[in-house]
Amino acid sequence: MAALGKVYLIGAGPGAQDLITLRGARLLAQADVVLHDALVTEEMLELCPQAEKILVGKRCGQLSTAQQFINKQLVDHVHKVPLVVRLKGGDPMLFGRADEELRALEEAGIEVEVVPGITTALAAAAASKQPLTKRGVSRSVAFFTSSTAPDHAEHDAIPDTDTLVQYMGGREAIATAERLLAQGRKPDTPVVVIENVSRPDQHIRRMTIATLAQGLGAAHGPVLVMLGDAMKTRSHQSFDSEINSAIAHQLRA
Amino acid sequence: MAALGKVYLIGAGPGAQDLITLRGARLLAQADVVLHDALVTEEMLELCPQAEKILVGKRCGQLSTAQQFINKQLVDHVHKVPLVVRLKGGDPMLFGRADEELRALEEAGIEVEVVPGITTALAAAAASKQPLTKRGVSRSVAFFTSSTAPDHAEHDAIPDTDTLVQYMGGREAIATAERLLAQGRKPDTPVVVIENVSRPDQHIRRMTIATLAQGLGAAHGPVLVMLGDAMKTRSHQSFDSEINSAIAHQLRA
Repeated sequence: MAALGKVYLIGAGPGAQDLITLRGARLLAQADVVLHDALVTEEMLELCPQAEKILVGKRCGQLSTAQQFINKQLVDHVHKVPLVVRLKGGDPMLFGRADEELRALEEAGIEVEVVPGITTALAAAAASKQPLTKRGVSRSVAFFTSSTAPDHAEHDAIPDTDTLVQYMGGREAIATAERLLAQGRKPDTPVVVIENVSRPDQHIRRMTIATLAQGLGAAHGPVLVMLGDAMKTRSHQSFDSEINSAIAHQLRA
Repeated sequence: MAALGKVYLIGAGPGAQDLITLRGARLLAQADVVLHDALVTEEMLELCPQAEKILVGKRCGQLSTAQQFINKQLVDHVHKVPLVVRLKGGDPMLFGRADEELRALEEAGIEVEVVPGITTALAAAAASKQPLTKRGVSRSVAFFTSSTAPDHAEHDAIPDTDTLVQYMGGREAIATAERLLAQGRKPDTPVVVIENVSRPDQHIRRMTIATLAQGLGAAHGPVLVMLGDAMKTRSHQSFDSEINSAIAHQLRA
């Protein structure tokens, strides 16, 4: 039997090609096969022209059968080629379903290594220039997501940290805002909503919990919602760059 | 008066040279001046051989006068050269004191852009192969730090998320463990403690909240503490690589 290859579980970051790590980019350039999510951008895949690229997974939620099929594909490929990359949007260890894949690979006796990526929340904080922590204002941050399953949604507690970041927070953000108001957070608590962070169609909106409770309208990509007093704007803060900075990086790269 | 330069606030990530982003590395290679923390590694500074490198800040906590001096240096340098980098360990927007520097630069009318970095928690999750979220086990994560000021420490609430990550958690971790036990978390809740993540002297320890409450002994670098059921090891998980994977990357680079 041939020696087994190795799998690298790599975080691609939020989408812009130059927001992957040097380590991630180097491994992509050496990969034989790259299994990637729909959230991984075309420009990111340009970093591995030599590799066989396979789209796996769904944009919003995966059936467990789909996950089992991804696991099987990983195991199958690493029996055939030396370097298999599993490329995920954001960071693999935060809302990335890494546990299932690590478990499957380990049970099959396959060597696996994880390369971290820029998680969406930190790219969003950078793009909006809103630090998630702030001396005297915010010393704790929670990243959370809400189940869309009706039996879960009502029982999900919203964390009690100073700053809150809701991943995949489009439709669910209304319920979050309502529950925060019911829990006594001030209606004028500032909120930043970011869609398609770091991509050419990045869109940043600023509002309050009270306005968030009225809904966000249609979203055209992954939505991240950041809440809390740390989201308050600074007196000399400029917002000119918010829409265009992602585009500028595309042109400059 | 000469046209002003631009300041980039860049996250260096946890320490390994290849865990900075491509964007961060490219800007470092173009920088005229780089003002960096003590947490930024020597190997990271090799990415900007052409730049004037200035060490600012302290390892553990900064006096506000020190922060004001950093702000002043940033403003002074950007009046003299076109590209000034402020390089911070981890990510600038998470426990990075970015607010003070953004404020000072904006008040001086200086253009500033933020480039995210791999925050220590995600590097630690990757190194230990412990996802911070896990289907059916953990859907929320909090990142927090404790004040060392005695008047603060007692009133700090510990967030109620499924997974907890304490930054700069060396001495303070004992108090955290005690309070979590008092709040009813199970004594056998798994804990992962990581020192110097991604560096050649990376050290990973696995324990429970009960053992954490007895203290960690001497630490030789930045300590991160991760807690919660997501830290439970998998049945076929291997720990061979934990101590040596950081070294392997150093040799391979």
